[in-house]
Amino acid sequence: MPEHKILLNESELPTHWYNVIPDLPTPMSPYMGPDGQPITPESMQAIFPPAIIEQEMSDQRWIEIPEPVRDALCLWRPSPLYRAKRLEEALGTPAKIYFKHEGVSPAGSHKPNSAVAQAYYNRQAGIRRLTTETGAGQWGSSLALAGQMFGLDVHVYMVNVSYHQKPFRRSMMQTWGAEVIPSPSRKTETGRQALEKDPDNPGSLGLAISEAVEEAAGREDTNYALGSVLNHVLLHQTVIGQEAKAQLAKVGETPDVILAPCGGGSNVGGIMFPFLADKAAGKDIRMVAVEPSSCPTLTRGHYAYDYGDSVGLTPIMKMYTLGHDFMPPGIHAGGLRYHGDSVLVSQLYHEGILEAVAVPQIATFEAGVLFSRTQGIIPAPESAHAVRGAIDEALKAKAEGKEKTILFTLSGHGHFDMAAYDRYFAGDLEDFDYPDDALNQALHNLPDVE
Amino acid sequence: MPEHKILLNESELPTHWYNVIPDLPTPMSPYMGPDGQPITPESMQAIFPPAIIEQEMSDQRWIEIPEPVRDALCLWRPSPLYRAKRLEEALGTPAKIYFKHEGVSPAGSHKPNSAVAQAYYNRQAGIRRLTTETGAGQWGSSLALAGQMFGLDVHVYMVNVSYHQKPFRRSMMQTWGAEVIPSPSRKTETGRQALEKDPDNPGSLGLAISEAVEEAAGREDTNYALGSVLNHVLLHQTVIGQEAKAQLAKVGETPDVILAPCGGGSNVGGIMFPFLADKAAGKDIRMVAVEPSSCPTLTRGHYAYDYGDSVGLTPIMKMYTLGHDFMPPGIHAGGLRYHGDSVLVSQLYHEGILEAVAVPQIATFEAGVLFSRTQGIIPAPESAHAVRGAIDEALKAKAEGKEKTILFTLSGHGHFDMAAYDRYFAGDLEDFDYPDDALNQALHNLPDVE
Repeated sequence: MPEHKILLNESELPTHWYNVIPDLPTPMSPYMGPDGQPITPESMQAIFPPAIIEQEMSDQRWIEIPEPVRDALCLWRPSPLYRAKRLEEALGTPAKIYFKHEGVSPAGSHKPNSAVAQAYYNRQAGIRRLTTETGAGQWGSSLALAGQMFGLDVHVYMVNVSYHQKPFRRSMMQTWGAEVIPSPSRKTETGRQALEKDPDNPGSLGLAISEAVEEAAGREDTNYALGSVLNHVLLHQTVIGQEAKAQLAKVGETPDVILAPCGGGSNVGGIMFPFLADKAAGKDIRMVAVEPSSCPTLTRGHYAYDYGDSVGLTPIMKMYTLGHDFMPPGIHAGGLRYHGDSVLVSQLYHEGILEAVAVPQIATFEAGVLFSRTQGIIPAPESAHAVRGAIDEALKAKAEGKEKTILFTLSGHGHFDMAAYDRYFAGDLEDFDYPDDALNQALHNLPDVE
Repeated sequence: MPEHKILLNESELPTHWYNVIPDLPTPMSPYMGPDGQPITPESMQAIFPPAIIEQEMSDQRWIEIPEPVRDALCLWRPSPLYRAKRLEEALGTPAKIYFKHEGVSPAGSHKPNSAVAQAYYNRQAGIRRLTTETGAGQWGSSLALAGQMFGLDVHVYMVNVSYHQKPFRRSMMQTWGAEVIPSPSRKTETGRQALEKDPDNPGSLGLAISEAVEEAAGREDTNYALGSVLNHVLLHQTVIGQEAKAQLAKVGETPDVILAPCGGGSNVGGIMFPFLADKAAGKDIRMVAVEPSSCPTLTRGHYAYDYGDSVGLTPIMKMYTLGHDFMPPGIHAGGLRYHGDSVLVSQLYHEGILEAVAVPQIATFEAGVLFSRTQGIIPAPESAHAVRGAIDEALKAKAEGKEKTILFTLSGHGHFDMAAYDRYFAGDLEDFDYPDDALNQALHNLPDVE
């Protein structure tokens, strides 16, 4: 009987992050300013520390992980790689299913992998305060945790409706010492304007980003931190894929297919990028981003330059996008409701190196429940997308009578998402199937940059 | 720099449970029936399977863990032993602090260690349904998880007020396929009577136990499962102490003091019993049960025969008790609000082999927050009692300038207890300091058995 878990010791934590930029088949499409010119490192200095800006644009393949970051990561890393034996049995599949359990971090997801690095570099640069935004709360809690570790005050602008609907994510951030501010707030010009128009504004992630950036840009001692989309975030997540590769090697395996949930791209980059060299060297590895069909950025969006936020304050990036004013329905996978996607993930998808599938919400929860009942761990709704994708691959292997090795990222646990499971059990969830013209509507407003 | 975690492989999971009964300095005080006579194994057959009854009364020192139970435990075990380096630094103590992290189980606490074994033995005996009660929800979710693993239907009577106040624990049980019934319910005679007297009855753990036992006793295919107090539960928890001993040995350590939170005794038995032989052989190991000063069973209760439940349906056991109708205040450590304690723990405490301390609620949350901010993991309020105890030992070591090795059980995480942290931050918690006569009041009603 194989063991459930393949473990690594702390000494086996990767010593370097893997930067995919030098290995891209074509150069990365640069970020553009509102003037249509590539943006400069200097223009990012108001909100990011030098080391992060350097990583964002680096052409070095391997970037050393500083010792204090490695020590902080080792509070929970290396994370276990599981063989999902019980799920395999329940499916009756000849496929082997492995998953990387990122829910073991104190914040409950893979997000602290980047939060810790960002907190460290900001502290090194003499910064005392960090601002950020959070919707579902995964990123806000991760930065709260990381800020605490390196002695930084963390201010989290939390989408007002989530602030009230998810009070326990808020409590978690406060336990780690962060200040949590419902957004829109009276602390920023953006917030005050929004409240003036509508005192009952429920808030949005775009608005919260704008408030966090405004506060960071306006104070010398304060920077901003983002939890997905940008290159340096994906870079920090590559510990996941490197560990998984080492763990699979211990049992003599290589993956035939790798899956990850896809919102902004931090999970996709984290687990897949470290396997790209093997694929480039001729190994037959499929890599599949799994997104919700209610926010089908890769599968149905356009590949074009667009704003990273909904109000148009950020640089313009070439990516798959549904349009920066696309409003996905209020599905229970808050982390996957982003209108765009990482530039790197978008480019690799465009070049046919990564694949993508979109899965409907109800089938995703079905998969989450089956996973809970076989493997015990209750997945976050975001993570359940990858579970759904992995189950579909395993069932295909069964139908074809083929052995296959499947690897996916279980990006987090669902302990703070049980209300979503409640709604699933109550039959209150619905699926969304957009006609093309409904999706195309939000694309009228793309910036005019080629 | 020492590593944070000391890991064991699945092959290092203990092969046997350690039964303390043959090593007790004096024979265990027998359970008594209402007639004042020791109860027989036969009288337990209505609600427990033969293997569990045998374990409850066994005089074998080592009891083999069945392979399917070991396999199920390995979904999360062996649990990591942490060196709390960051907590040590924050305290500036010369003491080394180690903790066993039982929050890594899917249910989030040590409780599944026994739930899995009980589900297995019941299934072996042809049982198809299990009933139990739950207050805070830790035990109910653990049995829901374990029942799912072995194909048993699980019916959890959940104290009505908790059912409504802790909806997410309920959702968790439902995700694992259990039926959760607010207690008192119309499903049992006990429940119907209670509701007739008071249709708005908020429920109590005692009432929920009575309903669960009534259902199990009345159906051939149904048994009952208990999550603490009884010998077989403590037996199943001894994997904790055995693993901790093996993990400490890997870094050449032995503990000077061991601490665990104490409600019914499952944590105390789990981590301490496997070290008793070392103590008996002359090693100077202090073992300290940490209880809330609002329910100070060991530190201020009487050592006497009393009922295990509040309504007097269970056997009579010799234990430290505050009286079976003692009603502790609604503190935020639901798992530690039991009026009595395990017979084994009580006897070892009475004989001076175990020590006990009572800690107030606010100081306990202070410790929980300091732990969260240094080690990252947010402890369950129950677990925070052991954290408080360990911090106090570490500060004593600092004051005395002594090196000391401290080991404690972090019995679970606090993801479903964030409302308690909220109340702590809001300043809404209070401490309780009973005058003696207030405590003695509930002792007027002890059964007349010597």
